[in-house]
Amino acid sequence: MFSSSVRPLALDQVPAFDHEVDVIVVGFGCAGASAALEADAAGASVALLEKYSGGGGSSALSGGEMYLGGGTAIQQACGFDDTPEDMQKFLSAALGPDTDQDKVSLYCRDSVEHFDWLVAQGVPFKPSLWDSPTWVPPTDDGLMWMGERAHPFAGIAKPAPRGHRVTADGFGGKVLMEVLGARVAESGVDVHTDTGVTQLILDGDRVVGVVARRFNDTVYYRARGGVVLTTGGFGDNAEMVAQHAPQLVGLGINSDGGDDGRGIALAQAAGAAVRHMSAGQVGISLIPGMAVRGMVVDANGRRFINEDVYPGLIGQAALFKHGLHVWVILDEQAYEEVPEAERWGVQPHFVAETLAELEQEIGMPDGALQSTVGEYNRHAEQGDDPYFHKEARWVRPLTSPFAAIDVRRGIAPPEYGDSKPGGAEVFTTGGLRTNVDGAVLDLDDEPIPGLYAAGRATSGLHSWGYISGTSLGDGTFFGRRAGIAAAG
Amino acid sequence: MFSSSVRPLALDQVPAFDHEVDVIVVGFGCAGASAALEADAAGASVALLEKYSGGGGSSALSGGEMYLGGGTAIQQACGFDDTPEDMQKFLSAALGPDTDQDKVSLYCRDSVEHFDWLVAQGVPFKPSLWDSPTWVPPTDDGLMWMGERAHPFAGIAKPAPRGHRVTADGFGGKVLMEVLGARVAESGVDVHTDTGVTQLILDGDRVVGVVARRFNDTVYYRARGGVVLTTGGFGDNAEMVAQHAPQLVGLGINSDGGDDGRGIALAQAAGAAVRHMSAGQVGISLIPGMAVRGMVVDANGRRFINEDVYPGLIGQAALFKHGLHVWVILDEQAYEEVPEAERWGVQPHFVAETLAELEQEIGMPDGALQSTVGEYNRHAEQGDDPYFHKEARWVRPLTSPFAAIDVRRGIAPPEYGDSKPGGAEVFTTGGLRTNVDGAVLDLDDEPIPGLYAAGRATSGLHSWGYISGTSLGDGTFFGRRAGIAAAG
Repeated sequence: MFSSSVRPLALDQVPAFDHEVDVIVVGFGCAGASAALEADAAGASVALLEKYSGGGGSSALSGGEMYLGGGTAIQQACGFDDTPEDMQKFLSAALGPDTDQDKVSLYCRDSVEHFDWLVAQGVPFKPSLWDSPTWVPPTDDGLMWMGERAHPFAGIAKPAPRGHRVTADGFGGKVLMEVLGARVAESGVDVHTDTGVTQLILDGDRVVGVVARRFNDTVYYRARGGVVLTTGGFGDNAEMVAQHAPQLVGLGINSDGGDDGRGIALAQAAGAAVRHMSAGQVGISLIPGMAVRGMVVDANGRRFINEDVYPGLIGQAALFKHGLHVWVILDEQAYEEVPEAERWGVQPHFVAETLAELEQEIGMPDGALQSTVGEYNRHAEQGDDPYFHKEARWVRPLTSPFAAIDVRRGIAPPEYGDSKPGGAEVFTTGGLRTNVDGAVLDLDDEPIPGLYAAGRATSGLHSWGYISGTSLGDGTFFGRRAGIAAAG
Repeated sequence: MFSSSVRPLALDQVPAFDHEVDVIVVGFGCAGASAALEADAAGASVALLEKYSGGGGSSALSGGEMYLGGGTAIQQACGFDDTPEDMQKFLSAALGPDTDQDKVSLYCRDSVEHFDWLVAQGVPFKPSLWDSPTWVPPTDDGLMWMGERAHPFAGIAKPAPRGHRVTADGFGGKVLMEVLGARVAESGVDVHTDTGVTQLILDGDRVVGVVARRFNDTVYYRARGGVVLTTGGFGDNAEMVAQHAPQLVGLGINSDGGDDGRGIALAQAAGAAVRHMSAGQVGISLIPGMAVRGMVVDANGRRFINEDVYPGLIGQAALFKHGLHVWVILDEQAYEEVPEAERWGVQPHFVAETLAELEQEIGMPDGALQSTVGEYNRHAEQGDDPYFHKEARWVRPLTSPFAAIDVRRGIAPPEYGDSKPGGAEVFTTGGLRTNVDGAVLDLDDEPIPGLYAAGRATSGLHSWGYISGTSLGDGTFFGRRAGIAAAG
């Protein structure tokens, strides 16, 4: 599964240390940058090790959304009231079942402070709202709904938009990492690129350093304070995915190619516990603006979710419940209403005057779409959706001609060039079990001395669900805390 | 999570050994009994430790089905041809995705030999077929279909019934464990009851014994050959379930109350890897004979599976896809066709002359059942089920009066006395990663010297799916192999 043993090296086996610092951070994505910056700010000497030739990691390839709220300056400027309590209720429901309430509570309580810290680093957010479900706004709007107004969430917590999108032309992750990278460059943090960590070093039960490979050399690092693992998830390790998250097998991986799970395994081999290793985000290959104006159906033509939820929840339902054999059904009006910049080139794969013809073209059972759309339209005449409770603003009868989009044929967001993720791109959200200060916990629920983690190497805020912005959000938030704890 | 640390004890910390044997088996369920018998037969001295006051474990409470095939004497006597290849194709599909092909292949290849071994121990099987989906036949029939004839499995492997049910009046698990218990009693195996293992003992990387509690005493056991963990799953450990299998939280647990996961954690703390910890069997609270003659629908009145599959697969779909908010819909004829002994006292919760009334009584959207049953009946007139491909023998139009059974209100199998598992009873199927000889593997895929495991403490044959008889089946099969390996 790994090219070399993940077992820790005993301190007395270290020939000599090449570097000695207070804090070692492993991985230069958003969590690692945040940990390094805060450890540096706390007065620690910091080495930030990155296996690739430059920083950024999977964070730099992301859409750049941070799930923040409780009354940020951007929310206020857009005219939305919000409270940490409502944010916590929403996240607990959306990331559940059975989320880590200590983490979710703290994350929501300190969300405004965290937003202000990001702004202080220079991360740009624009105070304007994009008011339709989407993966990434086709504009530079800085605030997005993440399904807070959708059933059942609107009945659980007072809705407020909490998707804070880093201002960018397209995906904002690169902007976020440019800014954090610039702050790291200005700081006292010592960045070592092309430096892949292969082992932890243990002195008894305490993590006191790491072994790394840099080209053909083995390099030994001693950490006086602690080691912070921010090595990402394990989506790129096919065997680990098969062992823990079999439902994700075979799908495209949303990463920089380096989410090999080694950081997780290194910690496990030092006694760490993991959580929710089967969980994953499912970036389904559909245009949310089309789905919400039409419907998403399975291979039998049946809807299975209100299409105004955060589209990753559509993706989880589509993959885990229907094996991604799903279609977007819409009419001409719905298609035309989606701005061209938001369509990412997606066009209908099937078009027909009648639902009976459309069923036949797709290969669905006779009656499948006729019964589903018939029922939908009958209730939509009254503006109702008693089956799935989609918000009334998105509900109207669909009319001929009808069109269908086969989700498994993929889409090509502009940022992806010619690649067309077939059906979905996923990443893993399970990982190391940490406490609110980023300490990695062992099987007895006790911190492993000297070992910290943040970002997608941990299970973070998540149980089974996912909302966009909770990876950059929890990575930076708990990355900061881990850096402070390791420095302290 | 555990009442005391799960960390291993170093050999030099052992004050003195109270017992020294070749092989220690931990847990006296079907896997432990099989491991102990084979280790004894191989000439090893064996101590079989059981934390309760007597053997049996969760195995003794089970239905007593063993999934066996490839041409057993029972299959032949009932007139069915079968091959290991077809058995392997079925199990790979039903237990997948991405099953351990080494294990499934070996299990199928040697299934006839294993059946013969069980018979040689005295386990009774009757050569007669129960020919309808069920949890446990209301007769003493010894052979059952486990959905081999159902879509999509019938198209993947030539169907043969492979559910071998230990002959019993009711649940057969107690008979199985009486027989295996009698063989253990006649053997040289030394059974220590009231002896709960709390720690493994390590000499460097090698497992060389266990620490146990017996009432107020701490007892130290040395194993010259190996320790075999057959300690069951972790369903009774609510915190472990929440961490690994959040979708199972809050459901009834199908166990003897002792599936606390400690055995799994002891091995993990000694470096063991785990697999598929989120997976579980879902014993849904419905009568399969009723479901197959009617239909199972979700809260929107929509079917979601062909009702002739193994009912545990209905359970997994109902729980993981629909949160167990499901109903059995049937008509008078369907209800009457189910023999009273098979009904376990279940009666309709709602009865109505029309589907519109039934919808209203249940609280489903207007049109929900009318559209679903309308579509079902329209195709059933032709004997077809184009939506889910239920076998034609179970397909006919449903007619007034209609009835609905609320699955969450539970059922009370005679063996359960007055208890009524609400919605479903579950157990975990993830666990330690082992090779085909029962050796527990570490995070480097290497065997941990001296440590073996079998039964539900391991992930066994399973990935995500489940078929009845693959727990007693893989527990006894790989239990035997682990016993032999530990003795050798």
